[in-house]
This record gives sequence, C-alpha cells and structure tokens, in this order.
Amino acid sequence: MTRVLDAYRSSWTDVAAHLERVPVAVLPFGALEQHGPQLPLGTDTATAAEVARRIAEALDAVLLPPVHYGDTWNTAGYPGTVSLRPSTVTAIAEDVGRAIAASGARLLVVVNGDWGNRNPLAAAMRTLETEGALRALTLDHPGMDAAIAAVRESAPAAPGLNHAEEVETSIMLAIAPEDVHPDRYEATYPTFPSDFGTRPMQLHPFSASGVFGDPSSATAEKGERIIAATVAASLALLEDALPRD
Amino acid sequence: MTRVLDAYRSSWTDVAAHLERVPVAVLPFGALEQHGPQLPLGTDTATAAEVARRIAEALDAVLLPPVHYGDTWNTAGYPGTVSLRPSTVTAIAEDVGRAIAASGARLLVVVNGDWGNRNPLAAAMRTLETEGALRALTLDHPGMDAAIAAVRESAPAAPGLNHAEEVETSIMLAIAPEDVHPDRYEATYPTFPSDFGTRPMQLHPFSASGVFGDPSSATAEKGERIIAATVAASLALLEDALPRD
Amino acid sequence: MTRVLDAYRSSWTDVAAHLERVPVAVLPFGALEQHGPQLPLGTDTATAAEVARRIAEALDAVLLPPVHYGDTWNTAGYPGTVSLRPSTVTAIAEDVGRAIAASGARLLVVVNGDWGNRNPLAAAMRTLETEGALRALTLDHPGMDAAIAAVRESAPAAPGLNHAEEVETSIMLAIAPEDVHPDRYEATYPTFPSDFGTRPMQLHPFSASGVFGDPSSATAEKGERIIAATVAASLALLEDALPRD
Amino acid sequence: MTRVLDAYRSSWTDVAAHLERVPVAVLPFGALEQHGPQLPLGTDTATAAEVARRIAEALDAVLLPPVHYGDTWNTAGYPGTVSLRPSTVTAIAEDVGRAIAASGARLLVVVNGDWGNRNPLAAAMRTLETEGALRALTLDHPGMDAAIAAVRESAPAAPGLNHAEEVETSIMLAIAPEDVHPDRYEATYPTFPSDFGTRPMQLHPFSASGVFGDPSSATAEKGERIIAATVAASLALLEDALPRD
Amino acid sequence: MTRVLDAYRSSWTDVAAHLERVPVAVLPFGALEQHGPQLPLGTDTATAAEVARRIAEALDAVLLPPVHYGDTWNTAGYPGTVSLRPSTVTAIAEDVGRAIAASGARLLVVVNGDWGNRNPLAAAMRTLETEGALRALTLDHPGMDAAIAAVRESAPAAPGLNHAEEVETSIMLAIAPEDVHPDRYEATYPTFPSDFGTRPMQLHPFSASGVFGDPSSATAEKGERIIAATVAASLALLEDALPRD
Amino acid sequence: MTRVLDAYRSSWTDVAAHLERVPVAVLPFGALEQHGPQLPLGTDTATAAEVARRIAEALDAVLLPPVHYGDTWNTAGYPGTVSLRPSTVTAIAEDVGRAIAASGARLLVVVNGDWGNRNPLAAAMRTLETEGALRALTLDHPGMDAAIAAVRESAPAAPGLNHAEEVETSIMLAIAPEDVHPDRYEATYPTFPSDFGTRPMQLHPFSASGVFGDPSSATAEKGERIIAATVAASLALLEDALPRD
Repeated sequence: MTRVLDAYRSSWTDVAAHLERVPVAVLPFGALEQHGPQLPLGTDTATAAEVARRIAEALDAVLLPPVHYGDTWNTAGYPGTVSLRPSTVTAIAEDVGRAIAASGARLLVVVNGDWGNRNPLAAAMRTLETEGALRALTLDHPGMDAAIAAVRESAPAAPGLNHAEEVETSIMLAIAPEDVHPDRYEATYPTFPSDFGTRPMQLHPFSASGVFGDPSSATAEKGERIIAATVAASLALLEDALPRD
Repeated sequence: MTRVLDAYRSSWTDVAAHLERVPVAVLPFGALEQHGPQLPLGTDTATAAEVARRIAEALDAVLLPPVHYGDTWNTAGYPGTVSLRPSTVTAIAEDVGRAIAASGARLLVVVNGDWGNRNPLAAAMRTLETEGALRALTLDHPGMDAAIAAVRESAPAAPGLNHAEEVETSIMLAIAPEDVHPDRYEATYPTFPSDFGTRPMQLHPFSASGVFGDPSSATAEKGERIIAATVAASLALLEDALPRD
Repeated sequence: MTRVLDAYRSSWTDVAAHLERVPVAVLPFGALEQHGPQLPLGTDTATAAEVARRIAEALDAVLLPPVHYGDTWNTAGYPGTVSLRPSTVTAIAEDVGRAIAASGARLLVVVNGDWGNRNPLAAAMRTLETEGALRALTLDHPGMDAAIAAVRESAPAAPGLNHAEEVETSIMLAIAPEDVHPDRYEATYPTFPSDFGTRPMQLHPFSASGVFGDPSSATAEKGERIIAATVAASLALLEDALPRD
Repeated sequence: MTRVLDAYRSSWTDVAAHLERVPVAVLPFGALEQHGPQLPLGTDTATAAEVARRIAEALDAVLLPPVHYGDTWNTAGYPGTVSLRPSTVTAIAEDVGRAIAASGARLLVVVNGDWGNRNPLAAAMRTLETEGALRALTLDHPGMDAAIAAVRESAPAAPGLNHAEEVETSIMLAIAPEDVHPDRYEATYPTFPSDFGTRPMQLHPFSASGVFGDPSSATAEKGERIIAATVAASLALLEDALPRD
Repeated sequence: MTRVLDAYRSSWTDVAAHLERVPVAVLPFGALEQHGPQLPLGTDTATAAEVARRIAEALDAVLLPPVHYGDTWNTAGYPGTVSLRPSTVTAIAEDVGRAIAASGARLLVVVNGDWGNRNPLAAAMRTLETEGALRALTLDHPGMDAAIAAVRESAPAAPGLNHAEEVETSIMLAIAPEDVHPDRYEATYPTFPSDFGTRPMQLHPFSASGVFGDPSSATAEKGERIIAATVAASLALLEDALPRD
Repeated sequence: MTRVLDAYRSSWTDVAAHLERVPVAVLPFGALEQHGPQLPLGTDTATAAEVARRIAEALDAVLLPPVHYGDTWNTAGYPGTVSLRPSTVTAIAEDVGRAIAASGARLLVVVNGDWGNRNPLAAAMRTLETEGALRALTLDHPGMDAAIAAVRESAPAAPGLNHAEEVETSIMLAIAPEDVHPDRYEATYPTFPSDFGTRPMQLHPFSASGVFGDPSSATAEKGERIIAATVAASLALLEDALPRD
C-alpha cells in the first residue's frame, strides 16, 4: 500500500521531487464548528482530512496539512465555533493555490468539509482558473448524499441536512471514535422558522444543542461506508481533471 | 497532570463550559516552510503547537487547532513552501480573535512559530486591542534566544539566524524525531549578499539547500531545553496578562 | 387588478407612502449575457423583471428598477456579454438593501435571473442579515425546474442546464416575442469537457453559438407556464418572510 | 432613420457584428433619486437614457442598457432614493468598460445623468485609460447649462442648481409626460445653510419636498430644446474621440 | 501680528490648549509635480502652504504640516513627479481628519494646491462629514481664477489652465523667488489633442517641457495679488463654517 | 561641500538629470507625534529629515520632501498627535517608490523616524522588492542605540525606550533648539503596566505628560553625536545596496 506523501511531515526536497513526478496536491479545508455535545468541534476538518488522505493515497498526490478554520457563520452563535469571514477563506485558498503552483503542482484538489466554505472556495477556484497557473477544483464531498441515503435509519431534521446526528456521528465513529461521547446522544428535532432555506439564517436561535436529528443509530460501519463512497465518487470525478502529459 | 482541553477534539459544550471557567485560548500559528532536506515543512507549526500545548496545559486554557500556513515570503522560492500574503495572516488572526471572544474568551495567546508572521500578527493584535472584545497578544518564542545561546555548539550562519541547523534540528528531534533525516545532515554556510538584513530579501538565490548552519550537533536534549525555556519565559510574560476577576 | 408601484416611474413621496403601508421592495437582478443568436442579451434581466413585477403586484410591494448587469463569467468569452466582478454584484445588492431599508422597507426580495449572481448575492444577503436593518433574501427562480420538467420536449444539453434553448426561448416568446429570432433557431448539443461541472469553466471554447440544446420546440405557452409556476413558488416561499406587525 | 442597436434587445451575434463595424458603445448611467413630488425617482436615468439613445443613433453605436442606480448621497435622506457607494459606481463602470472592450469596442461613452456620479465615474475612466484596452469618457450633459440659460423663466434656487424644478420638469414632460404630476407643482425656494457649496452636504435637512425652484413654467418644448442641445454638444465633443482606422 | 500656531514646531500641550480655545485646524495638501524647468517640483505644496499659513493666522487656527505628495496622474510622465494613487490621498485626508477631531478640532480646513487632489479629497470630506466627528471642507483656491484674470498678461495655453506659466511663476516669485530660474523662461504653447478635456489624459505626450504658456511676464507683485485674493476669498467662504458655541 | 539636491526646491528637469547620474533617492518618513511639553510634535520628522539630508549629501542623492505623518497609534491618545492607519503609511511608501522608480531611481532609501512606521514600511518595501522596479529599503536609525548608550546619563524609563527624554531632547537641541522649551523639563518615570511590551498598548493611560525619562541632562552636543553616529551607520549599511553599473 502506498503511504501518502504528507507535506507537513516531509522535507521540501521530498515534496519538490514528488510534485515533479506527480504534480497534484490535495488540501483538506475544514472548520472549527459546533457538532452537538457528542461530537468534537473538529468534525468537519477530520472528515475532510480523512477523505483527502485517501484521495491523495489513491492518486499518489501530495497531501497538504488541513486548514482548521472555515466560514461557519450559520453556527457562529454556539461558543467554541470559530467562523472566518468568507474573504478570509477565499484568500487562504488563493494563496495556497498560487504557492503550490509555484512549487510545481498542476492540479490542486480542495476537499471541502464545511458547507459554509462552498461559496468562498468557489470564488478562489475561479480566480485560480483565471490566473491559469494551475487547475484547481473543490470537492464538496461528491457521492456522500447517495451514500447517506443508503445507510440512514433515523429521519433527518430537514431535507438534506446532516448535522451532528446519525450521519456525522457515524463518520466520527469511523474516524475518531475516541472523540465521540455516546453518553451524550440525544435526539433533537428543532422547529425550523417557516422561511428556513430562503435566506441566510443562524441556527442557535432555534436549536439549543446544535443537534439536528438523532445520533442514537450511528455506527462506525455506516461512517466507513459513507467515507468510502465519498472517496470513490471523488476519484471518479477527478479522473478527467488529472494532468496528462 | 492536567490534560489540555484540545478544542479540535472537544465538543462545543465542553469548550464553552471551560471558557466560562478559564477564559483563555491559545492559538499556535505556524507555516509550511522549507527547513532543509533533513527537517519537515511543518517544523514551525510543530514547534508552535508544542509550545502552545504546554502553555495551555500550564494555564488550563483552551488549545485551538494550529494554523498550518503562514507568511514565509523569504523562503517562497523553495518548492513545497506555501506562503500566505500578509493580509491573509492578519485576517485569520483577527477572525479567530473575534470568534473566540464571542465564545467567552477574554485572552487570546497566539504562539507564533514563523518569523514572517510577526508583522501581520502584530497588525491583527492591534486591531483586536482597538476593538476591545478581548485582550490578544502574540508570543514570538520569548526566551528562546537565550536558551539557544546556552546550548548551541555550531556557529550560526548569520547572527540571530536559526534556520534548519543545529537549533531547529534539535527542536524537531525533541518533538518529532521520526520526521528528522539524520542521514541528510549537511553543514551549509552560505555567502550572504552584503546588504542582507537591510531590505526584504528571498533566500533561495544564495542557498540551494535551505540549510543555514550545521545540523550535525543537534540533539533531542538540546531541543527539549530550548522548548522548556521558551515555555517558561512565555508563562512568565503571560502572568500579568491573564484575566483577573 | 393592482397596478404595481414601479419606483422608477413614481415620485419619492409616493414610494415613501407606499413603503409605510407595505414595507416590501422587489429588485430584479439580471445580466447582459449571450443567449445564442435567437435571443437577446437581456434575456435574464427580462425574465427576472417579469417575475419580479408579478411578485410585486401580488404582494402590493414596491418594484425597483432592474440591475441590468451581473456576474456572467462563464459566458464572458462571447462578445456583447458584459460580466461584472462578483464583488461588484455584492456591492450593488448591499447598497440597494441599505438604502431601501433606510427608506422604510423591512423586506427586500431580490429576484435573481442569472446563475452567476448566486454566490455574490448570497454574500450580500448575509451582510444585510448581519447588519439587521431589514430582512433580505434572494429568489433563484424557485419552482422553475419543476415547471421546466413538465413542459420540456427537447433534451437538455447537460442535466439541469437551460441556456438559450427550448426553455429560455419559450420564456422570451412569452415575455418579449418581438426580440426573438425564430429564423435563427438551431439545435446545438456541444461536447462538454469531461470535467465539466467539477471546476469553474468558461463555455465559449466548446460552444461556438452559445446555444445549449434545441430551441425549435419553444412556444410562448410553455414560457408562460414556466413563469407562472416560478411566480407561484416564489410567493409560497415568501409567505413566511413577509413582515408582520 | 437609423434604428439604434439596443444591446438589451439584441443577440450577442448582432452586437458582436455591429461592434466590428462601429466599435463604439454608449452607456447611460443614472440614479434612483428623489425629484420632488411631481417627478419620478428615475428622472436622471430617463434623461441619461434619452440622451444616450440619441447619441447612439447619431453615431450608429451600440446602446447599452442603463445603470439605474448611482451615487446620490446628497439626497439619500429622502425615502425612495437609493444611493450607491462611490466605489460601487466606479466598479460598475470599470467592469462594463473592460467587458465591452473585450467585446470589440474601442470607445465607451458614458452618458452620466447624476451629479453624484461625476467623481466615481472619473475614477473609473482614468483606470480604463491607464489599462489601455479602450478609450473611455464620461459626458456630464455638456451644453445643457447653456440651453437651460436660454429657456429658463423661473429663478433657480441656487446658482447652477437645477433640481426638480422648471428645468427637470420640462425634460420629463418631453421624455415621459405620463410620469409627471402637474397637480403637484409647488414652488419651493429653501433657505440654504450659509456654507452651502463649501463642503459635502445633504439636502433633506433644509428642504422638505426636495424641490429646488418652481416647476410651474415647465413645458415639454423647453425640455426638448434642452435635450437636443445636450445631444448636439455631446456629439460635437465626441467628434475627435471617435476611433479612426 | 498673530504668529501662527505651527503644529510641526509646537508641543502637543500647546496644540491641545490652542484647539480647546480655537478648535480649527488648517492642512495644506500639495503635490510633488513638474512645473517646467523654471519652477520647483514643490510649487503646489508651497502655494498651498502659504495660503494655509495666512488663513491659519487670520483665524488663529492650528496650522498642520503640509502633505508634500498628491495625486498628479496627469503629469506623472515627467520624471521627478511623484503621484499618489487617489485612494492614498483619500486615506491621508481621512486619517488626519479623524485624528485632529480626536484632538479637539471641530473644523478641518484642507487647503488643496493640486488639481488632481480634488476628487480624492472630496471623497474624504464626505466620509468625514458622514462620520460626523468634525466638520471638514476642502478649499480649492477660491477666488484665484478671478485674481488671475485681473493680472494675467500672457495668453493661457488652454482656457482655465494655469500651469508653469505666468501665473504660477508669479506665485513662486512671491513665495520663494530663490527657487525660480528666470534664465529658463521659455514660452510654450503646445498643440492639444482635439479631445483634450473630454477624458482623462496625461500631458507629457504633447508637451516636452511641461510649460503651458509664457512665464516671461511673471512678477512677484502679480503673485502676491493672486495669493492675497485667494486668501481673502477663502476667509469669506469660511466665515459661515467656523464653529460657534 | 556638496549642496544636497532637494527635490522640493528643484525643477523636474534638474531632478531628472540628477537621477540619471545618481539614481538614488532618500525619503524621510516622520510622524506628528507628542513628545512631551518641551519638544515639538514634529520631532520624529525633523530627526528623519536631518538624517536623510546628511545621507543624501554624502551619496549625492536626491532628497525627497518629508512625509510629515506616520503611524503613531501608541500615542494617539495625546491631542495633537495625528496617527495614520498602517495601510495609509504602506500606500504612501509604495506610491513614492513606484513613482521615483519611474523617474529613473534605482534605489529608494526611506529614513524612518517613527517606531510605528516600521511594520507598514516593511510591508511596502517587500511589495516594491517583489515588483522589482527598484531596490527599496528602510533605515530605522541604525547605530542610534549604540550612540545613545555612549552618551546617555539619565536612566531610561524602560529598556530601549527613548521618548521625549534626554535622548530626543538632545537631538532636538542639535537640530532645532528654537523649538525646545527647557523651562518645561520635568523628569517623569511612569509606572508601566506589568504586561507592557507583550501586546499593543497605548501610552496615555499611564503617562499624563508623554515624557518617558528625564530631559534635564540633554545637550546639543549629545544630540549631534547621536545623529552623526546614525548617519555613519546608515552610510555603512547602504554601501552595498548602492546601484552599480
């Protein structure tokens, strides 16, 4: 099995040589965001880092260290959540893209673990595309929704919303079970404001715990299936984006 | 022994409760920067993270996950180095400061591991001070120079310059010996441009390896002494900045 | 039938009095963007303006004059297309929101006619929400996809892509038939790059005409059904967002 | 008589072909600004659009759709007025200029209908001039003052000030009589602060209605003479700026 | 005779006490700009400084040290000219205004010596007015045109243009005769591009020396009359802007 | 003795010719900052201007007029102090650098007289270095500390702090004795907050007069020695930075 080239733990000479051979870098972009009382603040980062690691392994690409902070405005009302301005997220991604291009990469894959990063990362990708120094794209966990649909037993709190419930708890049981508190599982189905989804809205006014659903049916096996499916779908998408000589 | 409250691995409820009791957060700010062929790109982050962890333990403060990228313009010419714009570094620190203040912290201690972050972090600290939501300060490894003077055996390549030589290699031997390549040790004393130090200058034009000195006399024990002294000096400095009721 | 209060043609005293009674304003946000040889550059603006007019009528709200330019980076390679930077789109929407709030409005409904405006308008909405001077939301033609599915006879060039083909031609036949050139209808099914959809991509390199599908089955009746359904879905969504005393 | 090429209602292929033949585009830049109880908020836009249309006709140039919003800080205190920040006005003009240059235009004529747009448009013109992609100039209704002097019967409220009185009411009677409310004519001669004209000053504190003078002697004929003279002077000025081969 | 309170040469305690008594500050804003071979680059600054000094004397106001650099884009093509970006000029004026308000001033009079500073200073004045911390206004040498008309013997190179010819040479003969080179007087009447005045335009392409007219009839007496008239008109304008209790 | 080429008093033709021969410019960057009751607000500017003048003389370089305002946030609480934002300081230096490069200079020496300008000037220098149009460097009074140590008789209020006491009073006695008030000498040794030096901090809360030490032993001779040593050390540093053919 390939051991991934982890840039954080590798010398510049090793990374430079590797990029010359495989000019692809993978950047996990996470967030420090509330995930209920049972999951750690680093849940999104941990998920993105795990998906990114597997993608990097499969592609023999350089794995960049994760960005631990993202734009999580929606949950900024929960203490411990650290939300960046969207412009900060965009700036980080642009800077990493330019630097890794200057280092020899021709493709940057950003594995995004946080919903709020989508728009600011899209802005950065477009800037990098326009500048033309390398190809850059963001993966927002493709394939994950289908995999969730296949394993989910509990009802979601709102359609398409997987936050701090069965799904994310399963993922963390697969990745970092030591950071999960099963003794704190509590099903919570908040009443959403009637105009939820139509405008920017913070969540703390109507959800005290930050849990949106029921974590009690979470299992590591479900989490592993979700991650594996996400990685597989990501790799399928990347197939055509990889640099060719 | 106190186990540090690591925000990355803790739930928002635990962090919120902790900040209510001890309203202090510690943020390691690093860089992904070349450190010669024998040390990893993450050397500055690893050092800052280790110092920050010990400070957080001593103060029973919340340890925030590290910022893995910084402003390392001077070494941006070495592939693998990922340098952020100074404005990006400032923005990250401002955003983290505002969010952690909103989370209940009254003091943010930034442990800075990278020389290039100094100015942009100082700018952020001043903004936070002016905004007044919390007290914020950056520690640029106080006490480290004295500790280095006490242990250093090899000559520095330039006065006050400790980069990828005996000092930093010793630190990494103490922190992450598995990421050090002793087989690649090579003393390098570049000839500096005569106006070095008078103006902004990148290093790659006159140093092929990125090593500035001689790593061969590095030991984990020296590294441990340097780190311990830095932590001690940091704690001394912080004594008067801690929030009092 | 209510005649809509068109701010462009009304005095400030009439608008001020109206907003005191019904504190809601509707802003059509369009684009000047290529829509093939058979449709005008103003297609997106015209569509947004028509939907906005009907919404304003139904709500007895103030109709603001349209923004004729938007972010259409994807089609900026077709001469005649005038694409704004995303930051410009965001700034316009923020400024309009602040001013109309100062004028007495408590809800701003932005009817967005252009895909590229989505992210920059979302950024503006969040800023307005955070500032708190009024409630602001963007409608990206809700209900339109379902209505399209119900009337579409020709195949789309790509899933979910309705650009300058049966759908948009039908809409323009309903709104402004005098600006449609049926003699120029030409079915065009471009071959998309294999990584289409995974990263920001301009369209002109693989589509000479800018048509994505087949306009030949377009009818005004289909267009009217699509518009009517979009208006109905918009009104349903708005029901809960309207200011209550 | 030439029918003007109205970009809003024309296909990109028609605009592209036209610009190849006549590489000149005309952009009306207006404002949504109070003009007393008898005139519509869109008065400045309507005036600029009419002048622009005639200029475009005379030059066989492409007429761009109007910008309906401008910088009207001075009257922002009247509800219904929607004032953009100066930087937003500058950004719009820069973006339109760059895009229309990329579309083949070699001259952009901005017909400015709003006093407050002067400085921000001048900034944009200079940027476009420096970038060099096309020649760009703003017309601030040249010749209008002389024409006003020739037709005006009522006294102005302040020297050089023509706002919502005889002059502008005449113009709107010529352009859009259906939007004028003669039953609301009321002469108003506010007492100006003694330092009026020496510093930036908003008008609502000393003028309740927003009328500055006496609309009662307004006629469509006077309006037509003012517009015709403005167009003639504009065309004279443009003579030397037109692209030559 | 009052000796002016020159802030540059006075202690903070003296300035603070003075502002408490007379809360007015005067700031000369100049430029380092070509003025032909016979006049110094500092001509605009010297003129503004002299006018400002006399105004400060008359008002018993605090005289601030001059800003030596301004926006002189039009003449940036002549070596030695140092032109600031407009945003830099705006920022300087805003910062000085805020600081001098915090120091106790209730009126800031900016004496502007450079045509190119007009727009960026106007932007700053509006920001200061909106912030409301003090009243701020820019004087663009009021009364100077009339005074010039009364003394001028030579023809201007273009209507209203007084640059490096009889007028400015007279002014410098009055202010700093030791910096004038009469042996270099040379009448120059450039041929202007036919669209001069309609769009932003740099001057060096059609004027080799930077002289626009004929300096040979310049006299110190004319200069003194121009300055005295400008000061008188400035004081008349300021009468109503002065703070009252 | 060489008379320095003072750009403020010289024509553009003289400066252009001089820069062709000696492509070096020297810019004094000062501040308007409190220096106790006995010294003028312009102390830092006067010092920088004097050092710059001597450097320019020695190098036969062009002396630019001083920037009278800087970033003096630390002392912004003393009325009369005028502090610029750091971004304003950076912008000024960047603009001057670009313009003087376009004028033919190949080296810009910024003589910085104000501690607070260090970071913003460093940012500007890096930008200029990256742009590559000329070499630019800031001198923060090198050699001054050693000279101070050699002459100082009174104790400093804090290690390394020379503000409005023996040192600066001596310098002003040497440069501008007519602006010094010996009758106001008063020794002041404030009690510093215990965390002074660890974070951004304003000084007025703990020092009423703004004096930090004892001016009573100040002499012009000491001042002259300090200045001469600073100039000598500056010239030594510059030796290698000077342009060579």
